[in-house]
Amino acid sequence: MSTPAISPDRLMARLMRLAEIGALPQGGVDRQALTDGEIAAWRLILTWAEAEGLEAACDDAGSLFLTWPGADRALPPVLAGSHIDTQPTGGKYDGAAGVMAALEAVVALKRAGVTPRRDLTVVAWMNEEGSRFAPGMMGSEAFAGVRALAEIRAVTDAEGVSVATALDALHAAFPDLPRRPLGFPVAAYLELHIEQGPVLEAREKVVGVVTGIQGKKTWEVVVEGAPGHAGTLAMAERRDALAAFARMAHRLYPEVGGHDEQVMFTIGRLVMEPNAPSVVPARVTFRVDLRHPDGAALDLLGARFGAICAEEAAPCRLALTRLVDAPPNGFDAGLMAKIAAAAERHAIPAMPILSAAGHDARHLAKVCPSAMIFIPCRDGVSHAEHEFAEPAHIAAGTQVLADVLGELVREETAS
Amino acid sequence: MSTPAISPDRLMARLMRLAEIGALPQGGVDRQALTDGEIAAWRLILTWAEAEGLEAACDDAGSLFLTWPGADRALPPVLAGSHIDTQPTGGKYDGAAGVMAALEAVVALKRAGVTPRRDLTVVAWMNEEGSRFAPGMMGSEAFAGVRALAEIRAVTDAEGVSVATALDALHAAFPDLPRRPLGFPVAAYLELHIEQGPVLEAREKVVGVVTGIQGKKTWEVVVEGAPGHAGTLAMAERRDALAAFARMAHRLYPEVGGHDEQVMFTIGRLVMEPNAPSVVPARVTFRVDLRHPDGAALDLLGARFGAICAEEAAPCRLALTRLVDAPPNGFDAGLMAKIAAAAERHAIPAMPILSAAGHDARHLAKVCPSAMIFIPCRDGVSHAEHEFAEPAHIAAGTQVLADVLGELVREETAS
Repeated sequence: MSTPAISPDRLMARLMRLAEIGALPQGGVDRQALTDGEIAAWRLILTWAEAEGLEAACDDAGSLFLTWPGADRALPPVLAGSHIDTQPTGGKYDGAAGVMAALEAVVALKRAGVTPRRDLTVVAWMNEEGSRFAPGMMGSEAFAGVRALAEIRAVTDAEGVSVATALDALHAAFPDLPRRPLGFPVAAYLELHIEQGPVLEAREKVVGVVTGIQGKKTWEVVVEGAPGHAGTLAMAERRDALAAFARMAHRLYPEVGGHDEQVMFTIGRLVMEPNAPSVVPARVTFRVDLRHPDGAALDLLGARFGAICAEEAAPCRLALTRLVDAPPNGFDAGLMAKIAAAAERHAIPAMPILSAAGHDARHLAKVCPSAMIFIPCRDGVSHAEHEFAEPAHIAAGTQVLADVLGELVREETAS
Repeated sequence: MSTPAISPDRLMARLMRLAEIGALPQGGVDRQALTDGEIAAWRLILTWAEAEGLEAACDDAGSLFLTWPGADRALPPVLAGSHIDTQPTGGKYDGAAGVMAALEAVVALKRAGVTPRRDLTVVAWMNEEGSRFAPGMMGSEAFAGVRALAEIRAVTDAEGVSVATALDALHAAFPDLPRRPLGFPVAAYLELHIEQGPVLEAREKVVGVVTGIQGKKTWEVVVEGAPGHAGTLAMAERRDALAAFARMAHRLYPEVGGHDEQVMFTIGRLVMEPNAPSVVPARVTFRVDLRHPDGAALDLLGARFGAICAEEAAPCRLALTRLVDAPPNGFDAGLMAKIAAAAERHAIPAMPILSAAGHDARHLAKVCPSAMIFIPCRDGVSHAEHEFAEPAHIAAGTQVLADVLGELVREETAS
């Protein structure tokens, strides 16, 4: 099988050029979803697409598609990409590396004279990060039918600007760009992404064959007590919201967070009211983030979490609001095997890895065979200006992506 | 002995007029220390002092003095007052009632033709509450030499404004106000205050002869862990500052807060960093407020508190900073007898009572015979907008105060 070589120089030149849009002083990028920065990034990417002879289009949810036409336009395309939006103080690689890798893979296959049986489409999903408009993954959720576009359009940012307003402005900036329908049929989806964790680096692997994404549940918990003077209200008469929290938390860490080696349990945010040194806490509001790769275990732990809170709340009142409830998902075994085989062909050190973070691929997996390729990032750091991935690792991951995409577009039936 | 009658109407009119400065929608007052509101309150009080022929002055720590001159100006004055600063959502009575009562007592004595042997001075101590600049009681601590003024001036509020800056602005607003030296000799100090507890109301008493103030220790505790991604950092590798706090707090509430029926244990303030839903807490900073009427028990519980924090902190680092260390104090027996006798003369139901809250009188007691008069407040509530004291109770307490002050300024030797 021919394995068209990607160009690491062209790939890195484009990735660094893209990082200039929204560049921050300490090397990071602020290019949040549906901002002027994202519009500028689209313009830049569209010049590259035009130069490479790709067909550009978008959908109603603001995701961008660049298509290398295949011999049979009636066949569902193979999709590859990620996102180009960033956190407010994000890095150059989270998301952008996956889109530039997919573009480079297409260019390499095209220049190598490969004849695709079906379309091969680069995609940049709208608002993966969810920093401006929360929660994120809006483009892939709308595409996969997980969330209604009308519901997404109603979300507002901190300034009160709605997704509807910002999305209409994006579309208005590209009046000639054709629209593709939301959720058009897809043969397969591949996404390259930095790991956002320390595993590949620690094991000295260059490619992670992602086996799936762990499930995640989050809640907001309000413990409602009553205020009182710290020096005069007898202990027996208090309804101290922090004392109730302490009883809950003391059980939650071992009984939920200590269930097994795979569970992740975090209370990352906690706010006290009135938060005055000499006033008995009247209200404690906290956020719980619970993750597990096994759906049954996640459900069990979620139920245990709720029960412990309820058992320990008295004499305070308890209100639990579930925010996120995403079951774990596994990726396509056939695609995983192709990724592993491609890495082996190129003697790239690879290993299976579970994704602890969420990705657009989670939603694509609901509508087509999907898989992800991880590459290491230094110290496992992401969502920070000093986020860094080695150019050699980006190139290696992109080569594997190009190999697998090459296979898929030549096959009679995808995946 | 003549007992000049105070004017309940004049007293309540002034107290309600003062409450308009910093008035909140639900009936409370926000007039924190060294704010524009306090400057406006000084202006109002100074117009009353001028109208009543009192000599106004302040000291370098921002406490305000209004003096009715006695026959022998060389004798140390009798002082009476409290504070006019409030909590951010405080009430109309905490502090202000004591200052207005002292003013009314002076006015009643003066109008009744009493000839004072020595000066009688109304005082409003700077920053009793400690809500803007913590800890409070700055004026009385500076006056009694408990805390150096330079140390007090270095304290900053949440916006980074120092006491020095705010205090200089207060003084600049009253350029013609004479300065009295910090810690001038005082013959006796009396303070009327709402009880801030439910005892007088429950026992249907109108005056509490305060026997002393329970001891108080406060600390700031910093639990230093390390941040991490909530979805990728294994539980075993975390140094979760909130998990460490939960272990401490779960033991502190029963082992310190449950020691006996007299202990008061509060964690009223807690701040997380970075306080983001998907980030492992890197730092938890909290305030502990521990009170007990028995000095030995307080010391024991303070030591136990420190030991529990140290035992439960690992793998996080712990830093304890003691902020307040005030032993219990008893008030002057002679003054207490005078208060009880005055109440009996007027057939006002009275009882001895221990103060659970701290007051400026705690510090004055170190430099002169001191005592306090408590009056009931509804449901024991203070530090809240709906804090309320019956006008008849305020008047009764003020009458007792006027009687005792009248005795003191006529005596050859105070107390």
